[in-house]
Amino acid sequence: MNAPLNAPTLATVADEAGVSRQTVSNALNSPELLRPDTLARVQAAIEKLGYSPNRAARNLRTRSSHLVGLRVEPAVEDSANALMDRFVHSLVESTREAGYHVLLFSAEGEPAATDGYDELLRSAAVDAFVVTDTYRGNPHAAWLTRRGVPFVAFGRPWGDPSARHPWVDVDGRAGVVQAVDHLVGRGHTRIAWLGWQKGSYIGEDRRSGWVDQMHAHGLSTSRLSARGDDTLEFGARAAQALLDVPAAERPTAFVCASDTVAMGALRTFDELGLRAGRDVALVGFDDSIAAQVCTPTLTSVRQPLEQVAVEVVRYLGRLLGHRPIPDPGCVLTPTLVVRQSS
Amino acid sequence: MNAPLNAPTLATVADEAGVSRQTVSNALNSPELLRPDTLARVQAAIEKLGYSPNRAARNLRTRSSHLVGLRVEPAVEDSANALMDRFVHSLVESTREAGYHVLLFSAEGEPAATDGYDELLRSAAVDAFVVTDTYRGNPHAAWLTRRGVPFVAFGRPWGDPSARHPWVDVDGRAGVVQAVDHLVGRGHTRIAWLGWQKGSYIGEDRRSGWVDQMHAHGLSTSRLSARGDDTLEFGARAAQALLDVPAAERPTAFVCASDTVAMGALRTFDELGLRAGRDVALVGFDDSIAAQVCTPTLTSVRQPLEQVAVEVVRYLGRLLGHRPIPDPGCVLTPTLVVRQSS
Repeated sequence: MNAPLNAPTLATVADEAGVSRQTVSNALNSPELLRPDTLARVQAAIEKLGYSPNRAARNLRTRSSHLVGLRVEPAVEDSANALMDRFVHSLVESTREAGYHVLLFSAEGEPAATDGYDELLRSAAVDAFVVTDTYRGNPHAAWLTRRGVPFVAFGRPWGDPSARHPWVDVDGRAGVVQAVDHLVGRGHTRIAWLGWQKGSYIGEDRRSGWVDQMHAHGLSTSRLSARGDDTLEFGARAAQALLDVPAAERPTAFVCASDTVAMGALRTFDELGLRAGRDVALVGFDDSIAAQVCTPTLTSVRQPLEQVAVEVVRYLGRLLGHRPIPDPGCVLTPTLVVRQSS
Repeated sequence: MNAPLNAPTLATVADEAGVSRQTVSNALNSPELLRPDTLARVQAAIEKLGYSPNRAARNLRTRSSHLVGLRVEPAVEDSANALMDRFVHSLVESTREAGYHVLLFSAEGEPAATDGYDELLRSAAVDAFVVTDTYRGNPHAAWLTRRGVPFVAFGRPWGDPSARHPWVDVDGRAGVVQAVDHLVGRGHTRIAWLGWQKGSYIGEDRRSGWVDQMHAHGLSTSRLSARGDDTLEFGARAAQALLDVPAAERPTAFVCASDTVAMGALRTFDELGLRAGRDVALVGFDDSIAAQVCTPTLTSVRQPLEQVAVEVVRYLGRLLGHRPIPDPGCVLTPTLVVRQSS
C-alpha cells in the first residue's frame, strides 16, 4: 500500500497555505514568531490535509532513547490521594513490558505549562511524554501538540473538542452511579454529595453521576450537596453543615468526590459520636491507602490504574511506531470497593 | 598536583595480582568466569592498592546520560507505608537541581539481585543508581560494587562492615527514643513495643531505641513486646494479646515499628471500645498519609526524606565528579510528629 507516500508533508502544507516551509516549521515550533493570520492559515492547512507533525518530528530524531517522560507534582501532605503514585508504579510496569523506561521530571517553583518539558525536548532525552494534568485546562497538551511531540494523556481533553491526541480516562460518573446504587440498595434515600468547586470538569462529571442516579431512583437531591476544595477541612465542615438540620431532613449517607473529603467527613462523624457503617454510610473516591487501613475502613471508588497504564502504553506504541490510531480516546470503568463504612 | 597520575590502574592491579589485565576486567565485570582463588587474589590487590573501579568505569563511558536509575518495587495494598513514594518525589526534586533526572525501572516477576540493573547497564542508559533496598541483605550493592558502577544507597550496609559505597540513612533508633521520651513525659510507664521479626536490621535498630530508653527511665520491658510481620493483622493481633491480661499489667501506650502495625493496633482498640489518645496512647513510624488523615490522627516518627534525597544527590555529585568522599555514611535524625493518638 502506498498511503504513506501520499501522506501530507511540510511541503504540501506550505503549498496549501501559500507560505514557505520555514513558516510551516515556525508554526509548529515557534508559533509566537508568526502573525496571527498567517498562523491561522497554516493551522487551517494542517487541519485540512490531516498533516501529522508527530510523524515529522519522529523523522527528525536520530536516536530513540526508549524513555517516556512523566512530570511529577510535589507531594501533598494531609491529603489521602496518592493516586498518581499508584499510576507511576503501574506505568513503570507497563512501559517495561514494551521496552521503555519512565523518566521522572519536575518543574521548578510554580509550574508553568512548559516547565521541564522544553528542557527535556532540547536534550532529546525522551521519545514521548505521558501527561497527567490535562484537567487543569490542558496547557501541556496544547503546547506539545503544537510542537508535534508524541504524547498520551491520562485524562480527557475536557472542554477541547478539537484535541486530537490519544488519551485514556476513567469514567468517574459511572463510579458515582455505582456508589449511589450501592447505597440505595442498602435502603438509603437521603444520600448527600460532597464535591468540588464548579469549574472542575472531573468534579462536575462525578457529581453528574450522583444527580442523575438519584433522579433515576426517584430521589430528591435538594439541599443534599455541598461544594468546596479537595481538603479534609472542607469534608469535615460540609458534613457538619448537612447534619446540622432536623433529624428528618438529615442525610443518612454521603458520597464524596475524593477520599480526602471522605476522611474529613469521618472526623465530623467522630466528633458527633456517629459511626460510619452503623449510624451513617460513607463512600469515598480513589481507593487510597488511607481508605484501606483506617478504622472503620472506607468504601471507595477504585480507578483501574493498572489498565489505564496498559492503554497508555498501547497508544504510545502506536504513536512511536507510526501506526494508525483508530480511536483517540479510551474510557475505562471504575469499580466500587465496599468496606465497613457503608 | 599529580595524585591522579599515581592512582592505581587496571595495569597496576594486574601486576600486583600477577594476572592479565583481562583477568582484572573479568574480576570486575564477570567474576563468575574466574576461579575462586584467582578472584580472591585480584580482589586483594584491588583492596591493597585502593583501586577505584568507579573511576575506571566512568572513563569508559562515551557520554553522560544525566540519568540516575531507581528501581521501584510493586505497590503494596493494605499497607500504610508509602515511604518510597515520598522519597521518589524528593529525589526527583533534588536531582533536578543537580541537572539530573530520575529513571524508574522495575524488575520482572520475583526480583533477583540484578534484574533491571544489568539491562540498564548494558544500554548505558544511566550514569549511576540509587539503591533503596539494601536492608534485604544488600545483593544489589555488592553486585554494583563488583562491577564498579557508581551508586549511593538509601540505607546503611547493615552487617557488611567492608562496604565502601556511600550511603545515607535515618537513625530509626533515635526516632523510637523520642517516642518513648514523649510517652514517659505524658506519664506512661507501661509502654509496649510492636515490632518486626528478628532478622530485620532496621527492626532491631528501632527496637533497641525502645529497650534502651525504657531502661534509661528505669522502666521494665518485660512482657511488653511482640514480634511479627509488617502487617495490619500483626498489629491488631499483637495489641489484642498484650491487652488481654489483668488491668494492672496492661500497657497504657504502644510504640510500633511502622504505621501499618499501628493502624492494626487501632483496629483492636476500636473493637475493645478504647480510644487512642484518651484510653491508650499510640505512636507509629513513617508519618504516612494514613497517619495524617485517619481519625484520630496518629503520632508518628517522620523520616527526613527531603534531606535524605539532598544528601544522596550530594554523594552522587562527588561520585560522578570523581571528587573524594571523606565519609561514606551519613545518618540523619528523624522527628516525632505528635498528633491526637498520644
